[in-house]
Amino acid sequence: MGGVIVVTGIPGVGKTTVMQKAAEGINIKFVTFGSVMIDIAKELGWAKDRDEMRKLPLDKQKELQIKTAERVAEMKNVIVDTHCTVKTPQGYMPGLPEWVIKRLNPRTIVIVEADPEEIYRRRQKDKTRKRDPDTIEEINEHQQMNRAIAMAYAALSGATVKIVFNHDNAIDEAVEQAKPVLQD
Amino acid sequence: MGGVIVVTGIPGVGKTTVMQKAAEGINIKFVTFGSVMIDIAKELGWAKDRDEMRKLPLDKQKELQIKTAERVAEMKNVIVDTHCTVKTPQGYMPGLPEWVIKRLNPRTIVIVEADPEEIYRRRQKDKTRKRDPDTIEEINEHQQMNRAIAMAYAALSGATVKIVFNHDNAIDEAVEQAKPVLQD
Amino acid sequence: MGGVIVVTGIPGVGKTTVMQKAAEGINIKFVTFGSVMIDIAKELGWAKDRDEMRKLPLDKQKELQIKTAERVAEMKNVIVDTHCTVKTPQGYMPGLPEWVIKRLNPRTIVIVEADPEEIYRRRQKDKTRKRDPDTIEEINEHQQMNRAIAMAYAALSGATVKIVFNHDNAIDEAVEQAKPVLQD
Repeated sequence: MGGVIVVTGIPGVGKTTVMQKAAEGINIKFVTFGSVMIDIAKELGWAKDRDEMRKLPLDKQKELQIKTAERVAEMKNVIVDTHCTVKTPQGYMPGLPEWVIKRLNPRTIVIVEADPEEIYRRRQKDKTRKRDPDTIEEINEHQQMNRAIAMAYAALSGATVKIVFNHDNAIDEAVEQAKPVLQD
Repeated sequence: MGGVIVVTGIPGVGKTTVMQKAAEGINIKFVTFGSVMIDIAKELGWAKDRDEMRKLPLDKQKELQIKTAERVAEMKNVIVDTHCTVKTPQGYMPGLPEWVIKRLNPRTIVIVEADPEEIYRRRQKDKTRKRDPDTIEEINEHQQMNRAIAMAYAALSGATVKIVFNHDNAIDEAVEQAKPVLQD
Repeated sequence: MGGVIVVTGIPGVGKTTVMQKAAEGINIKFVTFGSVMIDIAKELGWAKDRDEMRKLPLDKQKELQIKTAERVAEMKNVIVDTHCTVKTPQGYMPGLPEWVIKRLNPRTIVIVEADPEEIYRRRQKDKTRKRDPDTIEEINEHQQMNRAIAMAYAALSGATVKIVFNHDNAIDEAVEQAKPVLQD
């Protein structure tokens, strides 16, 4: 085996749970793209926390993304948790633009999805969420856009794209769908 | 602020109106990709009008696209009106292929959309249209394909993709959705 | 005319029939990407059949894809039969990743589609199929993902993307839709 596996999914879909369960008993590292990025920013003395990191000039942020992708790729046998796109007031921001995806060079990009209604209800139950909730229609749109950009990432890197459904009360099925990704 | 904003949308969706209203009171240039391109073709003595330009060999057309993208990018603070894809008998033709999108290097790609039924009715009212009208299903397909390619453009350039709905009698809401794109 | 035309479509959609009928009376070569690839693998002494070819290390497979794309591109006036994505247990595998699509440099990518229900029934009638059948929902998903990646291929190469519907008992309409792709 070996290689980088990217796991993505919109907030509330439960991507981390699914992949951690699927990887139980398998010797593979788990990292979050954002955590590695903030570590590197601190090492370089560019930022002390995520807020400072977000305020860096765009070219510095791009350099950080590149360094992060290179460090994760060197881990070789790793699942990296990140986003296909991040929803911002300026639109959907690509999480793995060309300069990142080509350096990560993943074997597979996993998209964990659920029905928009399910995600809506899960988000409502999460008291830590503050901002205006997305409508069911908006959640649907976000998942659609993520599928589209995942295919662009695949075209750029050769990675396979695996959709895993994490429906309510069906974590075992989600794990079964995810498992082949971790085998050769 | 500063940077290039691309605004797209299929014929009949009203993209120009939405973006011009959203930019009222903001100091930002407005250009059409096609107009800059014909200007350059004339300067070079390659074509006197759009018909002649379309008949140029493919490599000349590509060179014109590149020169146009470079000129627009130099304008820095600019909204450029163009198409994600143009529908032709040979299929959907990409308006911003890699050699264009990487030189434009936009901050955001705006997609103005409406319901296919709305676009169908708006096109029917427009007496200047000649060719066989697209069906509602075909309008839906065109918008879907544009979303998909916009995400590929995002993957190549890092631009955000903002969808703005321009529904009937709801221009104010469309403008509200578009405004954050013009702020930093 | 001249140039490479790529024809794609999921198993059971009838892409080969549609394109062969559309090309009747036109002087254009027909090849299958996979056949040219196995020919090259044999010439190089890398594999004696498809099974051996699939077991080659990834870098050898990539080299074979590149050589295949180059050979097909040299044929100049050719329709090449291949897949937007191949469905595997590890997810959708891109058939025309960047290193292939840029060398093929096609004029047009044709996607032959049908309703998921139609494809489901056609597959059921095909006794040579062994593996667990896809559900109608899965067939729909596969066609969606192929549209998305075709648009990424278009962004990378400038090719147009033409969707041709091959509905039951409507081969003539499918051929009519495909014909403009073969004209200049």
